[in-house]
Amino acid sequence: MDRGFAYGDGVFRTIKVLNGVPLNWDRHFAKLLDDCGRLKLDCPDANVWQQDIAQLFADAGDGVAKLMLTRGIAERGYAVGLSPVTRVSLRSNLPIYPAGHAEQGIQVHLCQTRLAHQPLLAGIKHLNRLENVLARMEWQDADISEGVMLDQQGLVIEGVMSNILLRSGKILSTPDLQQCGVAGVTRQQILSLAPRLGLQTRVADIALDELMQADEVLMCNSLYGVWQVVNFNGRRWVSQDLAAKLRQLLQG
Amino acid sequence: MDRGFAYGDGVFRTIKVLNGVPLNWDRHFAKLLDDCGRLKLDCPDANVWQQDIAQLFADAGDGVAKLMLTRGIAERGYAVGLSPVTRVSLRSNLPIYPAGHAEQGIQVHLCQTRLAHQPLLAGIKHLNRLENVLARMEWQDADISEGVMLDQQGLVIEGVMSNILLRSGKILSTPDLQQCGVAGVTRQQILSLAPRLGLQTRVADIALDELMQADEVLMCNSLYGVWQVVNFNGRRWVSQDLAAKLRQLLQG
Repeated sequence: MDRGFAYGDGVFRTIKVLNGVPLNWDRHFAKLLDDCGRLKLDCPDANVWQQDIAQLFADAGDGVAKLMLTRGIAERGYAVGLSPVTRVSLRSNLPIYPAGHAEQGIQVHLCQTRLAHQPLLAGIKHLNRLENVLARMEWQDADISEGVMLDQQGLVIEGVMSNILLRSGKILSTPDLQQCGVAGVTRQQILSLAPRLGLQTRVADIALDELMQADEVLMCNSLYGVWQVVNFNGRRWVSQDLAAKLRQLLQG
Repeated sequence: MDRGFAYGDGVFRTIKVLNGVPLNWDRHFAKLLDDCGRLKLDCPDANVWQQDIAQLFADAGDGVAKLMLTRGIAERGYAVGLSPVTRVSLRSNLPIYPAGHAEQGIQVHLCQTRLAHQPLLAGIKHLNRLENVLARMEWQDADISEGVMLDQQGLVIEGVMSNILLRSGKILSTPDLQQCGVAGVTRQQILSLAPRLGLQTRVADIALDELMQADEVLMCNSLYGVWQVVNFNGRRWVSQDLAAKLRQLLQG
C-alpha cells in the first residue's frame, strides 16, 4: 500500500560510505531536501538519516547507503492523504568494477531508449525510473560499462546511472537538465572543482555530434567517481588524465 | 529491495469486483499481458490471478481488486537479474461517489501538470505515476471530481484516473495515446460499444479547443464507469443521456 510501490511517489539517494562515513553528506542531503521540496515531500532532518547510516555502518565498514523517502502508506487512488512519509535506509556492498575502468577508460553503448521531456520532474532523483530500466535492458555485453541516453530531440542528457561531461580544449561542458535527466551530486562537485584544473565550465544543450567531437568524454556518479569514455558509437579516444585528476580532487 | 519500490518497474490493474466476480476479466487480463510484454515482464497465467481474486473475495463481496506485477527483488542497480517477478493482489472497498456524478455530471479541473511524450511507455498502466500524483495534488476542492491532463504540446490526453471521450454530432472521439497516457479497458470497451448507439468512433489528436466545443464530454474508468463532464474550464454543458446509455451497455 506504500505510494513508493504503487506510484513511484518518492525520491532516493545513493551514497558511498567509507569507514562508516558517508561521502559528501552535505551535498547529498541538500539535494535530497531539494528533491523533496519539488515533490512536496516532508524530508526528515539530516540527523535522522545520519543515525540510520551510523546504525547500518556500526562496524565502520565500507559500502553503499541507499536512502529512500516516499509519500507513505495510503488508500488506493492518487489523492494525497495525511499519512506520514516512509523512510527506508539500506546498506549494500560497494560495487566492484574492473580497475581498467578507471585506468584505461570504458566502452559505452548508445541507448535507443530516449528520455521524455518533463520539466516538473527533471533533475530530481525520483522513483519513476522505467526509462533507465529500459535503457539498461538494451545490452548484456559485460564489456559495456554504461549507456548514453539522449532525449527525444536527440540531445545528449546522461548515462543510465551517471552524468556526462565533455572537454573540448579548456571548456568542460555538461548537458543542461531542465527537461529531463538527474542532476547528480558528483556532476555538481566536478563543475565546482574544474576551475582548479584551469577548465571553464558550461551547462548547455549538447548534440550527439558535439560529444563525438569532444577531446575527452567523462561519466561520473557518486559510487565510482569519474571514468573516461574511450569507446563509444564508433569512435575511440586515447586515454587521458582528466578523469584521474578529477578523481583525486573529489577525494580531497 | 523490490524493483517495484526502487524504480516503479512494474504494471498494475484496477478491477471492479461485484459479488466476488471481477468485471471484464478477459479485457483486463489481455491488457495486463500486453503491458507486461511491452516491459518484458513474465506475467503469471490468468488462473493464478483469478485464484488470488477468488481468495480475496471468498465472501462473494463487492470491492476493488488491484493486481500488481513487478520485476521482483534485486540487487541495487538498474541491470535486470534473474529474480522471479513479484505478484501483489490487493482488495479494497469500492470508492463511494456521490450519486450526482452519474446523474447530473461532474466538475473537472484543467491540470497544469502536463504529460511527457514517451512512446516506449505510452498506453501502459505502469508503476511510474508521478505525473498523475502531481496533477492530483493541484486541487483539494471536493466539488471537483477529476482533472483533464494535456501533453506538453497542449493536446488533450486523459484524466488523472480516467480516459476521456467527446461527442461531436454522431462522432465519438478519444485522444490518441501513442505518445503518453494510459489506454484503459473501459475506453476500449466504449469504442467497441459506441456503434450500437449510432456513433462513429475516432481516435485522434484532440486539441483543448476541440474538447471545449464538443457536444458532450465524457470521462470513464473501470470503477465508476462513465460520467459526463458538465463544468470544465469555464464552460458548462447541459446534462445529456450518453453517459447513462453507455453505463447501461457496459453493464450488459
